[in-house]
Amino acid sequence: MVTKNQIKLVVSLKQKKYRSQHKLFVVEGEKMVNELLYSDCKPFRIFVNDPKLLEKFENAALVSSKVLGQMSNLAHPNGVLGVFYMMQEEEKVNPDWVVVLDTVRDPGNLGTIIRLCDWFGIQELVCSKDTVDCYNPKVLQATMGSIARVNITYADLDNYLKNTSLPVYGAYMDGDSIYDVQLPQKGVLVMGNEANGVSDEVGSYITAKISIPQFGGSTTESLNVATATGILLNEMRRG
Amino acid sequence: MVTKNQIKLVVSLKQKKYRSQHKLFVVEGEKMVNELLYSDCKPFRIFVNDPKLLEKFENAALVSSKVLGQMSNLAHPNGVLGVFYMMQEEEKVNPDWVVVLDTVRDPGNLGTIIRLCDWFGIQELVCSKDTVDCYNPKVLQATMGSIARVNITYADLDNYLKNTSLPVYGAYMDGDSIYDVQLPQKGVLVMGNEANGVSDEVGSYITAKISIPQFGGSTTESLNVATATGILLNEMRRG
Repeated sequence: MVTKNQIKLVVSLKQKKYRSQHKLFVVEGEKMVNELLYSDCKPFRIFVNDPKLLEKFENAALVSSKVLGQMSNLAHPNGVLGVFYMMQEEEKVNPDWVVVLDTVRDPGNLGTIIRLCDWFGIQELVCSKDTVDCYNPKVLQATMGSIARVNITYADLDNYLKNTSLPVYGAYMDGDSIYDVQLPQKGVLVMGNEANGVSDEVGSYITAKISIPQFGGSTTESLNVATATGILLNEMRRG
Repeated sequence: MVTKNQIKLVVSLKQKKYRSQHKLFVVEGEKMVNELLYSDCKPFRIFVNDPKLLEKFENAALVSSKVLGQMSNLAHPNGVLGVFYMMQEEEKVNPDWVVVLDTVRDPGNLGTIIRLCDWFGIQELVCSKDTVDCYNPKVLQATMGSIARVNITYADLDNYLKNTSLPVYGAYMDGDSIYDVQLPQKGVLVMGNEANGVSDEVGSYITAKISIPQFGGSTTESLNVATATGILLNEMRRG
């Protein structure tokens, strides 16, 4: 049985305030829900709108398409909606590289960066408090399930960077070429805001500015922050 | 004076059919329009909805906000709309690397890839005929003006790859690690569809399958095609 209060609760999770309050978040689609079910993520409840789907999702609750539509963040809900408990933030004892995001605003960018961290085995992603919420539905859609495998914390970067003993690399337009910099085994990589780059406050903790060289006399202003993160993580891991 | 027929023409450019017929396309926003005005792109006509903007765009036509809204592809039109002639497809005599896209469907991905080609000095981007139209407004928005600096052609890939004398590299999940492959000075890089990768037909022309290694026991299915293109172009250029 699904109570009205439960429906109300799930609908409320569209807002960050209620996600934080209940420590719950929503993902949609068979594939995404399955990925999380097979991860360390604990399910709160799964909802489906078709009895046939109960074979695939044993303990799911059957609701009408209308109710699923109310709960859904999609224009065209696709039959399966999972509510999961947020992962507990656990500080990794000894991460090798930490990625720090300074005010990344675009959900697609954050989602892609989480997926990249997962791909390149980055255990620790630290976001400034004004970076977009990682449980935002658009972020989750872009992570493709990687959300369960990367430890994401929201922190006061001033405080975080003041206390790290690792060298702090920052991505800048005018930094030293990554082809000339010998990246160490461990460090912090700071990526800045889409329009303004790394803020001055955070910039004061940077020990080395790095950049991705441009070729062929191009006058492109900058690379997309997610693409740049991918290139830098690849540089880090290729050794 | 702006005639009704001219307005009708600009509105029709929302459809690929009419863009191809008239060889015209639309970009929006002061920054994008300016980037194209300072490129090799020839303007057909610029439209603004505020007399003050006539100082910045000398030969622009002043229209009402209502008319600009009709012409615009944006939910919130931002005052400046430029109609430009499509670049002529010119075959580069001696490109070093050519990027080939096999059925890339997402406008944001194509836009990001065009921007990456610009950044890494790739002169030649060849798209399969079913790749999303590069003059699609969402593609243009993601290119950030790079559209004017990359030579983009739509071709029958079967025919194109049959006739190239360059080695053809394809991005695959199970290819050889790019860290172990010595990339030559010249070649073709084939990137596949978001969901299905490189098609079998195109795959028959691949001389070497390459892949980006995964780290830390990650089970991420794949990287986003635009991100993967960025990493591979960086590998190509870093030497």
